[in-house]
Parts: sequence; C-alpha cells; structure tokens
Amino acid sequence: MRKVAVIGVGQSVFGVRGDVTLQELAWEAVREALEDAGITQKDVDISVVGTVGTRGYELMPAQPVNDYVGMTPKGPIRVEMACATGLAALTVGYNFIASGNADVVLAIGVEKMNEVDTPTSLAVGGRAGNYLWEFHFYGTTMPAGYALYATAHMAKFGTTEEHMALVAVKNHYYGSLNPKAHFQHPVTVEEVLKSRPVAWPIKLLDSSPISDGAAAVVLASEDAARRLKVDTPVWIAGIGYANDTPILTRRPDYVGYRATRLAAEMAYKRAGIAPQDVEVANVHDAFTIAEIIAYEDLGFVKKGEGAKLIAEGQTYAGGKVAVNIDGGLKAKGHPLGATGLGMVYELTKQLREEREGKRQAPLKRYVALAHNVAGVGHVAYVVVLRR
Amino acid sequence: MRKVAVIGVGQSVFGVRGDVTLQELAWEAVREALEDAGITQKDVDISVVGTVGTRGYELMPAQPVNDYVGMTPKGPIRVEMACATGLAALTVGYNFIASGNADVVLAIGVEKMNEVDTPTSLAVGGRAGNYLWEFHFYGTTMPAGYALYATAHMAKFGTTEEHMALVAVKNHYYGSLNPKAHFQHPVTVEEVLKSRPVAWPIKLLDSSPISDGAAAVVLASEDAARRLKVDTPVWIAGIGYANDTPILTRRPDYVGYRATRLAAEMAYKRAGIAPQDVEVANVHDAFTIAEIIAYEDLGFVKKGEGAKLIAEGQTYAGGKVAVNIDGGLKAKGHPLGATGLGMVYELTKQLREEREGKRQAPLKRYVALAHNVAGVGHVAYVVVLRR
Repeated sequence: MRKVAVIGVGQSVFGVRGDVTLQELAWEAVREALEDAGITQKDVDISVVGTVGTRGYELMPAQPVNDYVGMTPKGPIRVEMACATGLAALTVGYNFIASGNADVVLAIGVEKMNEVDTPTSLAVGGRAGNYLWEFHFYGTTMPAGYALYATAHMAKFGTTEEHMALVAVKNHYYGSLNPKAHFQHPVTVEEVLKSRPVAWPIKLLDSSPISDGAAAVVLASEDAARRLKVDTPVWIAGIGYANDTPILTRRPDYVGYRATRLAAEMAYKRAGIAPQDVEVANVHDAFTIAEIIAYEDLGFVKKGEGAKLIAEGQTYAGGKVAVNIDGGLKAKGHPLGATGLGMVYELTKQLREEREGKRQAPLKRYVALAHNVAGVGHVAYVVVLRR
Repeated sequence: MRKVAVIGVGQSVFGVRGDVTLQELAWEAVREALEDAGITQKDVDISVVGTVGTRGYELMPAQPVNDYVGMTPKGPIRVEMACATGLAALTVGYNFIASGNADVVLAIGVEKMNEVDTPTSLAVGGRAGNYLWEFHFYGTTMPAGYALYATAHMAKFGTTEEHMALVAVKNHYYGSLNPKAHFQHPVTVEEVLKSRPVAWPIKLLDSSPISDGAAAVVLASEDAARRLKVDTPVWIAGIGYANDTPILTRRPDYVGYRATRLAAEMAYKRAGIAPQDVEVANVHDAFTIAEIIAYEDLGFVKKGEGAKLIAEGQTYAGGKVAVNIDGGLKAKGHPLGATGLGMVYELTKQLREEREGKRQAPLKRYVALAHNVAGVGHVAYVVVLRR
C-alpha cells in the first residue's frame, strides 16, 4: 500500500458567514491549502467534496463548489456522513492515492449551516440518524441524544455538570487564542452552569454552535510529495472507521460509543501505535460530555475516568494529551462537512510546530489524532497523523 | 495496484415502489447480491451507500440503510454524485480494495424518487448542477438542458426526432423482455413522435421515468475472490471519471459531453482497450438524444454518426455493440443512486452469459462498458468490465 501524506492545509474563518456563498467559502480554504502545498489546481488529480448540504439551496453542492474553485474537470465525487463527513472525505481521497489511482488529491469540506431554517431539529439534526424512529416518533434531537449519554455517565461514574463545564472553559480558552474560531471569548464554569438548559444536563454553553465554514486538505503520495519538494510532510499513519445502529434503543448502554472504540482500534492497529502515544488530538466535542466520553473511548484513560482527566487539566497543552487546542467544535465551531478536515488542518499545523506560545502542544513523538463523529455515535472516524 | 472483481450483483424491480421503505428496497438488492456472491454480511469489510436522497424523509440515508441491511458496524460512507451516484459509489469501493484497505466491499445504490413531490424540477432535478445560475435564473430543468443538446445535434448533424424515437423503441423492446424493468411494454416510432412534448424536441416517450429502485454490487480482491471460491469473477479493468462546468453557458458547444469523452479516455487507457473492443454497454440514456450522443462520445462511432448507428439497428444484441439491452434508463428506469450499479448488475449477467435468448449479447472478447452521467453532462463515470 502506498504511503499518503498531508502536504497542504487551509481553513476559512468559522462562524456565521452570510458574507459569502458556499462556493466562495470553499475557495477561502482551498486557496490556503493550495498555497500551503505550493501547488496549483493543475497538480491535483481528483477533488473529493465533503458536505452534508442538506436543505441548502444547492442540494448537490459538489459540482458548483468544484467548478468555482477551479477543479473542473477533476471533481467527480461528493461524500456525506453527517457530522463525520470531513474525515469520510479524507478517507475516500486517501484510498485513491493508496491504491495508485491518484497522486495528489484535494479534500474539501464546506458547510453553510446558517442557510437552513432549523438546523438543529427537523431540517438537518433530527434527520442525521434514523428519522422515522428516533426523531419523528420519539422526538430525539441531537442535544437530547447526547443528554441521554450525559445522564447515564453521571449516574454510573459520578461525572458532574461542573466536569462538563470545564471542557467548555478549556475549549473557549483556546478559541480565544484562535482568530479563525467561531467563538473567540473565554467562559467561566459559572457562566456555563448558569446558561440556558437545552436538554438537561446539556446547557447552551455545553453545545457547539451552528457554524458556517470550510477546510481543505491536500494529500499526496510519497513520490508526489518528494517531486513537489514538500518541506514537512505529515503522514497518515492509519485510518479507522465504524458505524453503530442509529436506533438508540437498541444500544446496550449509554456511557460510551462503540463506533469510536472500533474506529480507534482499527486506526491504532494500522498505525502501529498505542493510545498513550498520542500527544495532540482533536476530538468530536459536539457537546461537552462527548469530549469526556471520547477521552475514554479513544483509550486516553480507562472507561469512567474521563471527568478526572479534565478536572486535573491534563488535556491542556503540556498535559498528558492536548485536546482541542484550537477550540474544538465547542468554540472553533462545527460546520459539518468542514469539521473533520478542520481537525486535520489544526493537527498538521501542530505537528509542523507552526503554532505560537500557548497554542503549540509540546511534542516528542509527533503523533496526533483526529476523531470525527456522525450523529450520537452513529459513525466514527479516527485518523492517526505522524510527522 | 490490486485487481478488483465483481463477485455478486443484485437489483430490485425498478418502478413506483410505494410498497417498501427505502431500507426495504435496498435489502431486495443487497440480499440478491450477497446470495449471488455466496457470502453473508460477515464477509464484507465495508459498505458504501450511493444515494442522492435529497428531500426524501431520510435526508442522511446511509445510516438507516446500512443498519437495516445488516451492515452495522461496517457502513461509514455515503457517496452522492447526482445521477452518476451509482458508479461514483462503485469507484469509492474499488479504491478501498485496490489500496489494500479492504478485501470485500458492498456498494449499495438506492433511491425513492416518488417520495419527492416534484422530482423533475425544483426539489431535485433543477438542483443537480448550479441551482442559482441555471435553474433559478434561467429555468433550465433537466429536459430543457438535454433539449439544448438535441437541437444543436439536429442542426449540425441532421439527427431527427425519428432517430431519437428509434432509441426509445429499442430500449422499450428490451424493457418488455426484462421483468425488473419499470416499463415492460414496447412502443412504436409513431407513439413516441405523438407523445406529449416536454421540452421540444424531447417528448414524454424520449424521457426516462421517475423510478424507485435499488441495486447492489459485491467487489472483492483477487485473493478474496479465490478464497470465496467465486466461479466467474468479472474484473474491473479500468475506471474513468471527469466533471464539466455546471454552468451550461460556459461550454463551447452542445453536440457532445466533454466529461464523457475524458472519462472514456481514462477508462480505456487504464483498461488497455479501444472503444471497438466493447461488445455490450449500458449508457446513460436519461433522454433518447443522450444515447445517440453517448455512442459518439464513447468512441463507438465518430462524432455526428450516432443517429446512423441506431438507424441501422447496430445497437441491438448481435449488432456492432449491444447497448442498453436491459431497457436502459429509458425503460428499465432511473432511480438515481441505483442506476449506475444497475448497469453493473446487467453487464455482469451479460459477461457471465446468464441471460437467455434475445436478452443475451453474443460475446467474443467479453468486454463490457458502463457509462453513468450526472446532470446534463456535468459528471461522467465510465467503467470497463472484462470476464
């Protein structure tokens, strides 16, 4: 199997982006990624667009996006996997290179969430799973699904609302240092606890925002990376993926996500590493409880010890493992298709040690991990990156 | 690069399928494909779902579909490329095996077009391209886009409404022999010419129907095909793909599709064959003019000679190249996500010589071709299959 490197990354400012069309938003990320790789569209063999796109006015958005960013005639694929769309697109692109069918691939993730009338419920969120059984019959929105896991985790392991608030505090702190984050202001534990309940114990400040945004990643084979004189290629060491039943009532418990555990196991095995090797990670903190559960499911700590990890501050840069030090979904934002590629954007910068001061994780082994989830643990992707 | 074989195929009856849900429809094809391959879900490494899904009630349909057909936890990807979704999904699956990241892949294509209120215009068809410029500003629906190409082809090459009607007559003839076709009745040239105009010169009987349907294809590596004791593997000899600008006014002419020409060139080169080697083909006859233009763009004849080929009856089984002898999109039906995989279903049966009487193309070289197009030549996939 051919080795695959990340040779260029780009990301738009995440936030409410009524100032641009979907195509223009994609271009902000694509231009930066191409410049970062030191290439032009002519060097790219194929473009993979990851976008949920649902209910936006361009319902099959890959074609206008590819055309606008100069990828015609090399843009024949769109990938969708709800909130995990970004790493799904990366995985599809990865296989084009690993197989030998392409040397250079552009993966584009883009989403305009604010174009949709009711993104959290009927129009999008409620349909990311099994609409008929979960949303229509039981009214299970995304916050309600995560609240189910939060209460179970609290009951079984003593995790508290304060623990969850600490995740928001950490991620908002890093958002405040990130000029591309949706939220660039810090919050306190008290502010989180006093914020409006969405689906108890999840409150407004436990929740990721409705963001527009784009991210792009240029992948290359080893030969192409050498030919293009890439200074610091970041290698994709292993990718894992799995889904779980979208019918929540069929799951055996609500304290962890099987899809994440299976995906992590596959990624670690393929990369030949252990969870403890990971020094910097972006995990899917759609809600603060999800970050605590991710610590456990990814094997950073044992099941039930996630709350302790955040309480001890071990997931700040300099701790045991730096997590979401770009702000995460919680503060950087969560524009579905762009989210996973935005993680790879950040981790590539980290592995190249291009961040400054408190924003740079100290590295010895140069191992990073991205974790992208669809729905309430419906699908998970885990990508291990190494310099 | 690892070789990839088609080892199992299945297809539901195409048509108005109000009798089943999307998941149940998918299962009809998946069950047949698994049985045809002589395997169970346990033997599959990953499932790729191809579906446009737009405006159906399951907006992110891969998860409920995969779960229902028993593919949890191996179903983390959905692919969409409008009407070319089926072969896009096949291509994604192909690369998972060619790279060595999977041994057995299930590609599922499924669509319920009749669940959507206005499938041809606002809700789906008009948005398969560049909604804002083409549909909203200029009112260019799919039939109108193809009519533009039909009138240009008539003006430049003398193609007539009768020539187009002959395509409908051929494809309905084969539909009448296919118990899985949406339309199982023959039509006459006179009936086609007298049918209601949709966008002149395209009439109702020049148009493919609004079909529900599913198709599934099991792919395997050479080793896996041997291990699973597959009798007659059908090899994917080469895949080509390309897109063109979705803004029709920017195209240099309207007598051929650049995306098809580029995709065919790539597929022929990778397969190491010439167009004349193809003995049986399924081409994307969304409208009858599209089949005539496909003859030319795929290189079966020179540009401008497509009408002559159908007029001489050379695309019936036994002619120069047998085209759409399952009824094609025109009579078998066009359930977007299922269409391309339905082509592979038919061609696999042809290459294995499992059809009877007039439905079996006579073969010497055992070379087949599938051609799947999105929009009005917006994206094209060409897959060359060999026994």
